[in-house]
Amino acid sequence: MKIALAQLNYHVGNFEANTQKIIAAIGQAEKLEADIVVFSELCICGYPARDFLEFNDFIAQCELAIGQIASHTHKVAALVGVPRKNPKPEGKDLFNSAFFLYEGKVQHITDKTLLPTYDVFDEYRYFEPNKKFETVQFKGQTLAITICEDIWDVVPDSDNINAHNPLYTISPLDEVRNQQPQIILNLSASPFSYEQHQQRLKVIQANVRRYNVPMVYVNQVGAQTELIFDGGSMVMNAKGEVVAQLPFFEEHLSVVDLNVASKSVVPESAPAIALIHDALVLGICDYFTKLGFKKAILGLSGGIDSALVLYLATSALGKENVLSLLMPSGFSSNHSVDDSLALCKNLDTAYHIVPIEENYQQFLATLQPHFKDTPFSVAEENIQARVRGVLLMAFSNKFGYILLNTTNKSEAAVGYGTLYGDMCGGLAVLGDVYKTQVYELARYINRDREIIPQNIITKAPSAELRPNQKDTDSLPEYEILDKILFQYIEKRRSARELITDGYDAALVSRVFKMVNTNEWKRFQAPPILRISPKAFGMGRRMNIEGKYY
Amino acid sequence: MKIALAQLNYHVGNFEANTQKIIAAIGQAEKLEADIVVFSELCICGYPARDFLEFNDFIAQCELAIGQIASHTHKVAALVGVPRKNPKPEGKDLFNSAFFLYEGKVQHITDKTLLPTYDVFDEYRYFEPNKKFETVQFKGQTLAITICEDIWDVVPDSDNINAHNPLYTISPLDEVRNQQPQIILNLSASPFSYEQHQQRLKVIQANVRRYNVPMVYVNQVGAQTELIFDGGSMVMNAKGEVVAQLPFFEEHLSVVDLNVASKSVVPESAPAIALIHDALVLGICDYFTKLGFKKAILGLSGGIDSALVLYLATSALGKENVLSLLMPSGFSSNHSVDDSLALCKNLDTAYHIVPIEENYQQFLATLQPHFKDTPFSVAEENIQARVRGVLLMAFSNKFGYILLNTTNKSEAAVGYGTLYGDMCGGLAVLGDVYKTQVYELARYINRDREIIPQNIITKAPSAELRPNQKDTDSLPEYEILDKILFQYIEKRRSARELITDGYDAALVSRVFKMVNTNEWKRFQAPPILRISPKAFGMGRRMNIEGKYY
Repeated sequence: MKIALAQLNYHVGNFEANTQKIIAAIGQAEKLEADIVVFSELCICGYPARDFLEFNDFIAQCELAIGQIASHTHKVAALVGVPRKNPKPEGKDLFNSAFFLYEGKVQHITDKTLLPTYDVFDEYRYFEPNKKFETVQFKGQTLAITICEDIWDVVPDSDNINAHNPLYTISPLDEVRNQQPQIILNLSASPFSYEQHQQRLKVIQANVRRYNVPMVYVNQVGAQTELIFDGGSMVMNAKGEVVAQLPFFEEHLSVVDLNVASKSVVPESAPAIALIHDALVLGICDYFTKLGFKKAILGLSGGIDSALVLYLATSALGKENVLSLLMPSGFSSNHSVDDSLALCKNLDTAYHIVPIEENYQQFLATLQPHFKDTPFSVAEENIQARVRGVLLMAFSNKFGYILLNTTNKSEAAVGYGTLYGDMCGGLAVLGDVYKTQVYELARYINRDREIIPQNIITKAPSAELRPNQKDTDSLPEYEILDKILFQYIEKRRSARELITDGYDAALVSRVFKMVNTNEWKRFQAPPILRISPKAFGMGRRMNIEGKYY
Repeated sequence: MKIALAQLNYHVGNFEANTQKIIAAIGQAEKLEADIVVFSELCICGYPARDFLEFNDFIAQCELAIGQIASHTHKVAALVGVPRKNPKPEGKDLFNSAFFLYEGKVQHITDKTLLPTYDVFDEYRYFEPNKKFETVQFKGQTLAITICEDIWDVVPDSDNINAHNPLYTISPLDEVRNQQPQIILNLSASPFSYEQHQQRLKVIQANVRRYNVPMVYVNQVGAQTELIFDGGSMVMNAKGEVVAQLPFFEEHLSVVDLNVASKSVVPESAPAIALIHDALVLGICDYFTKLGFKKAILGLSGGIDSALVLYLATSALGKENVLSLLMPSGFSSNHSVDDSLALCKNLDTAYHIVPIEENYQQFLATLQPHFKDTPFSVAEENIQARVRGVLLMAFSNKFGYILLNTTNKSEAAVGYGTLYGDMCGGLAVLGDVYKTQVYELARYINRDREIIPQNIITKAPSAELRPNQKDTDSLPEYEILDKILFQYIEKRRSARELITDGYDAALVSRVFKMVNTNEWKRFQAPPILRISPKAFGMGRRMNIEGKYY
């Protein structure tokens, strides 16, 4: 059987574009003489469609699209993901379904059984779990159709191939085991994190070993604001070898003949930092494309975060579509401008120098009758950051640039940033990248030649909002800070445990407190491109006024 | 049996304060010779604790608190809500539980069966549903213990008392029917919306009628950022009559003797606008109290939204704790300052006049080399709003005020507001109140005497960011706009349906588009006090770059 894997980039709610894309892929699969073309989860409406799923009219559009797509399946069958109305009154209103289309008609519907409702996923908010288990007969083969999480009822690192994921009490593939499926098909929308692909490989491996059949895995590609889908669709034979591997971070359609494809493809295993780089570039690119914008602006401080964002933005949008503002104040070091100029030169990209001193002084003058002789404080620091925000947004409003935010994860975690100042922006490019990873990324970018000037990498980080300020005046060294943050945010460990591990008790307590007391600030941060298993945003839902630690 | 209803205001994660409060209430119930004191859902940690529930240490704190509380239950039993670890490896890690404490020990545990996972609720993210159904024997009575949603498996307006809520496929009270419970106890954390109390009454009524036993309903009170819990705990006899009713929006402990209490209390039915008023005041008050702040600041524009917020803030925090800034520009009308001054005088509250013209002109000067001779646009409009934002935040940072946001729901819906300008603030007081409701609220506040100057109510709304600007220059009349918004946001109806209803097709399409294309702006809005069944925020999860309508 020849199976086409259609790894495509969908636009949520853009039924016309998605349907045309799916129909074109069916045509391509037909030309390549595939028997069936497999798409990704909820491809017709795009994933995640979120609360659009609660609008009847949105579901009606999905139904219309199915009809249109089905009419193109006379020679090749298509397996498409789409939400459908729960025909029974009991339970949630929808199923998350895979429609098997052939000869112009809906031949079979498979609903998703395991509905992830954790981290960034809210599937039980919308969908009723499937309780009916059937395989599909097609051209003499028995197909087991699964949707994303349905294959995650395994324990990847267990010696026991029958070990079950304790989160779930039902295994959709176990339920069809006695129907002796010959191929497992999986329609996924599995977002990227830097360890996700390795995890997926193990999960698919655990499945093919347990059931002793090959699997065709088709993942969505493309970013949907925070969530970046990396594709990486593949075919694994029953021995657990990858026999076909689609590229990461781009659209692709491949046809694999399961009878022929037996040669193990050794998948290129890119280092995590390369994947993060590619994910961020795609994240920027799709944010602009899907919103219908072309041009980005950002503030270039002379620091490493904004340098990195500029580089990533020029990679994603083209150097001609990015404008940098250099906005020195009286507290700015000389090198802040010089280093930024060197970077702009390296990248051959446009900039303006817009000093903020007069605006800053004017604010001090306006406020003088009220501030009087109070000492210089965070208020004056923040005015500088906010003047920069006003200038950047003025360019944005006047000329149609989208402002890119340059806050990194370490800063976001401890609230080291000015709300409505350097926290402005439509998209936080580095909000899920710890400062130590920012350095790693800079070294990766400079691997062949110096793109990011060395001085930007080596100088001590500073907000330059008061004379001779350094980040370490108010924060621990990033090397230690990031370790504590990682343990708390990613690993959800307690202060007690970290202190037992040997971390300084006062430091741990201070860091935990900074994280918790800055939920109000993060609440108003721009959406953050997610590259880790636990990013700030929809995957981490905290209480603003909660008092814990 | 004498039952104490403890309707208390908890602080999420503040175990010390919550535990002390619970122990004090047990003492009070003991003094009043109650047999048992019933608390609200998840009272030990506070509701909603959100992702704190995923931290083992947080759950360990809950366990410690149970031990402490149990040791105070020698004379009176206590029924407390708390998360507990799922003892089995299968399923979610936690149960949402009610612990029956007596004689210093845990006597019984009841887990929640129906886990709301819609709108603002995420319970299936954390909790495994209960599948074991038992009543509790206490002093010769059979008690059916339920937690919040567990009693919502009814159809309030149905003639058939056995009609089930189609969302659920199991009914926890049906499961214990054959154990012949004599009293139903319910621990709730049911947030306010202007129609929620009437809904609750009907739900409780449907239950007591179906099972023919009285119900004791204890709801949490107090606001948790966006969510405002209104209390309104009650006892209903088997005939469906309210025989005890606790107050709304305040802490209260009442003891009810179920053998004696038979006289129907006719609950005072306050108009929705009065409830909204009280809810907003509590929402402001608790936001400040729980975050440990006292003082608020806001920008007073001369318009009705900021006037209302000032009034509500003085009610919540005391007139001495609120500061208004009047920030006229060259485009401000004379009455904008005069009306604001009249309001400050009526409320006897402090203000400063801080003109923005010089700051605005300085920005124009700084930007002149780049803006050149481009025509006056939204860029210049927004600079004014953002200068005001900078000034308000400077006061906030310098003196420790929290900035209150004054955006109303109509503006938030269509994106009529400046991000980082008038969209600044720690809390959006009116973000769930449509403009037409804002007027209604103003009339309610003025019901006895003129507090909000009449001119503020009668003049045409204007942002005053360009000469002679009116809201209706860019928006439909609020009377019609709000109707369309309500149908789209609250009722989730389609453009097609609204056009069939007789609304102008071009207008509907324009409004729907404005709502959808402003998700990016709302993403960065402050938390919004929720007073309707569908507020912007955690209860409405949309896609920023989705393309639908």
